[in-house]
Amino acid sequence: MTVPAAPSDHDLLAHAVAAAREGLAQGGIPIGGALIVDGEVLATGFNKRVQLGSAIRHGETDCLENAGRLPATTYARATMVTTLSPCDMCTGAILLYRIPRVIIGENRTFLGGEDLLRARGVDVVVLDDAACVAMMTDFIAANPSLWNEDIGVAD
Amino acid sequence: MTVPAAPSDHDLLAHAVAAAREGLAQGGIPIGGALIVDGEVLATGFNKRVQLGSAIRHGETDCLENAGRLPATTYARATMVTTLSPCDMCTGAILLYRIPRVIIGENRTFLGGEDLLRARGVDVVVLDDAACVAMMTDFIAANPSLWNEDIGVAD
Repeated sequence: MTVPAAPSDHDLLAHAVAAAREGLAQGGIPIGGALIVDGEVLATGFNKRVQLGSAIRHGETDCLENAGRLPATTYARATMVTTLSPCDMCTGAILLYRIPRVIIGENRTFLGGEDLLRARGVDVVVLDDAACVAMMTDFIAANPSLWNEDIGVAD
Repeated sequence: MTVPAAPSDHDLLAHAVAAAREGLAQGGIPIGGALIVDGEVLATGFNKRVQLGSAIRHGETDCLENAGRLPATTYARATMVTTLSPCDMCTGAILLYRIPRVIIGENRTFLGGEDLLRARGVDVVVLDDAACVAMMTDFIAANPSLWNEDIGVAD
């Protein structure tokens, strides 16, 4: 009898990538997140700026919202997976809920609050995933104004 | 002919307090926010953890969501008013959108990311408003578990 191997960080990233692609298919910004607790996907989410006219539904925050109200003891066992380095807001959301581990698809197209996360004791893993880089590179090239709006930058 | 005086910081705080009281009347956590642009109230909001089962609708983030999608040039002229010192997530949201000024009702019952805001160049004003202190003191005493959940703390 063999025991199934625990999912790798790349396996977990696949859930966030799938969420990002769902957002892209809806005409949205392709950034996705997944909240993993005890090896299980508790929730996924993706940026909904376009779909909901939302200023706060980023990949990570949408994922936290979809996960619903959780006790601190659950967040304490959680890993946040995100296709892109978390912006200041999403960095803060991870810190608020004391999520101890963050897996990041890539930080080449945007570098968020990784230093702050590490300074506050969060285990941050950057996978430098080529598919994530390509997805954001293509999106930003085609939608520069929308992307700037999402990260609070003037055109 | 007299020119109307510009609203004071205390005048602006009143909008956030009114929002917090609306949330309290709904059975929610009494923390409110108001986004002021060019002296006008662009949006208000309040914590909706109880009302919407939300993990991300704090006073400030709910206010940003109610304000909708805005260009960076609008945020650059904005003041975020909040009844309570902003948590890590709301601190991050203010930083994401480069909101240059934050008016805080009180920071006695909770001290959030004020140092980080200042370090990033945000003008932070703490009014130490007695009514805000009383509102949160009473709420926390009556609802300690709900309050701990909202700030990511285990009971």
